[in-house]
Amino acid sequence: MKTVRCSILGFGAVGQGVAEVLLMKKEYMKSIGLEILVVAVVDSKGAAVNPDGVDLADCLSRKRTKGTVGVEKLTAVEVIKSVDHELVIETTPTNIVTGGAGLQNMLAAFETGKDVITSNKGPLTLKYKELMEAAKNSGSKFRFEATVGGSMPVINLANEVLAGNRIKSIKGILNGTCNYILTRMLEERASYKDILAEAKELGIAESDPAYDVDGIDTACKLVILANAIFGLNVTYRDVEVTGITKITPDALEMAYERGHVIKLIGEVSRERIHVAPRLVPINHPLDVRGTLNVASIDTELAGEITVTGKGAGPIETASAILSDLVAIYANQ
Amino acid sequence: MKTVRCSILGFGAVGQGVAEVLLMKKEYMKSIGLEILVVAVVDSKGAAVNPDGVDLADCLSRKRTKGTVGVEKLTAVEVIKSVDHELVIETTPTNIVTGGAGLQNMLAAFETGKDVITSNKGPLTLKYKELMEAAKNSGSKFRFEATVGGSMPVINLANEVLAGNRIKSIKGILNGTCNYILTRMLEERASYKDILAEAKELGIAESDPAYDVDGIDTACKLVILANAIFGLNVTYRDVEVTGITKITPDALEMAYERGHVIKLIGEVSRERIHVAPRLVPINHPLDVRGTLNVASIDTELAGEITVTGKGAGPIETASAILSDLVAIYANQ
Repeated sequence: MKTVRCSILGFGAVGQGVAEVLLMKKEYMKSIGLEILVVAVVDSKGAAVNPDGVDLADCLSRKRTKGTVGVEKLTAVEVIKSVDHELVIETTPTNIVTGGAGLQNMLAAFETGKDVITSNKGPLTLKYKELMEAAKNSGSKFRFEATVGGSMPVINLANEVLAGNRIKSIKGILNGTCNYILTRMLEERASYKDILAEAKELGIAESDPAYDVDGIDTACKLVILANAIFGLNVTYRDVEVTGITKITPDALEMAYERGHVIKLIGEVSRERIHVAPRLVPINHPLDVRGTLNVASIDTELAGEITVTGKGAGPIETASAILSDLVAIYANQ
Repeated sequence: MKTVRCSILGFGAVGQGVAEVLLMKKEYMKSIGLEILVVAVVDSKGAAVNPDGVDLADCLSRKRTKGTVGVEKLTAVEVIKSVDHELVIETTPTNIVTGGAGLQNMLAAFETGKDVITSNKGPLTLKYKELMEAAKNSGSKFRFEATVGGSMPVINLANEVLAGNRIKSIKGILNGTCNYILTRMLEERASYKDILAEAKELGIAESDPAYDVDGIDTACKLVILANAIFGLNVTYRDVEVTGITKITPDALEMAYERGHVIKLIGEVSRERIHVAPRLVPINHPLDVRGTLNVASIDTELAGEITVTGKGAGPIETASAILSDLVAIYANQ
């Protein structure tokens, strides 16, 4: 049995999802020779630390009742520097302007020789090359499948399962909120405004939806794919972006009558990275509905390989983190 | 640079595809630190052997002009036992009654400590457990992504990219010939017999199509998924199988008017393994057309993840073999 000591930094929806998944999968992890010992959980207000393992069920209930997991006034960086562990699971909120706490956490983790698994797009969108170099210099593992498409595999699919295959382009629907809004506008012949209100009510759109509906979230995911799969060194500024706020029910209906749906498509190749509403033939592999995500990977040897799955959700995103964890530590 | 010496056993469409892909990807392989030296190519009539590397372009042209690559009267097993190499690429034809040459080749490869990558379903369908044990005893690597879905990843996707996720079931379309016939019967309102004739003419169906249209090929693929992903120990006899030969254009049309297509669906779970024509709602992720394959993986944590791709073709199948090769030897 190998024991992996880890911290969970950020204890919002995804961080809590990770805690739940680790509780659920404890026996399974033992069956593949791994014991995952969470030695610290940190949110913006404080930390719970125990070198012998914090009680995750306690952390979840404390977060729900008190709004914080914190019993000690320690920041994430202080925990990284002072608590012995091998793995940082970084799930703080995405900040694409400064990189936020996530960037500091990842750099501190690499400085102290720790591996990092993250769902946080911000640091990868801004400082991909620096992070990869920091990880390399310290011999740290760094995995981030959860940053793109939630549980829908893209990065590890392209880089590992399709290894040896030159990827020509990847295009798809990488934002479930936009896909939900466009799907429902067509179904209900309703305005963008009305469906956005519905999506907010259902928790599918944020109270400030700009990050999703303006295409920024999709653009950030393309930046990560561009860097991680195509070996580029680009940032958000290299992406041409148009969102969905100008799309009318009339446009959707007219397209449908001509055999098409309108989807917010992100596409990345070595030549161009762009996000825009585009026509997709009905029943085309990219014509997926509701909050689903889809990515079509155009390969040199195998043609197009298309993958569809749930792009968001705490447990779904945590499952991508778990797969990264198993990939690093099982059979090591 | 690490040199991997390998043999290609079986030099039909897939074996030739492997040779072509190795020629195409020579520079790429070097860029990831691998030199793949093919020291023997064997078909049913003879062998070409050179410890310093055979000329693959020569082999391909000799096969096309003379019908055999053979310049020496050596069998595959003799090559395995007498020629130094690390990897056997086994692409002889599938035989699900005896396991055919493939079974003997794989066992001989493991006995002599060689790794095996294969596209050959027969041995895996009949003797999965024995093969896994033989590989384990000799410390050999054994990979077979190409046996299911050609270039469409399923086995490595479920076992590696989705690691940690308990797979509840896999269902999909795993035979492109059947999918082509059913798609075309609906499009043309034509009989099974007429479209089968068309498919034979296009090289999509074999002259004896029973293996495909009776559902046997799909059943064999399910057996491999059952053993490799669900950890079962089953053979072809454990699968309930119905093929597509009784389906009429009327049935397809009636289903379509009610919003459905009829597809030959294979499904595997821990409880049941079966192949049968089933109704699929139009625009459902399993509603893929033509010769495409699709697999929907139902996971405990991430819901359904669906992958679509080309299920056959020599280069496509060879690309799955190449990915297995990179997975074994790169970064080792």
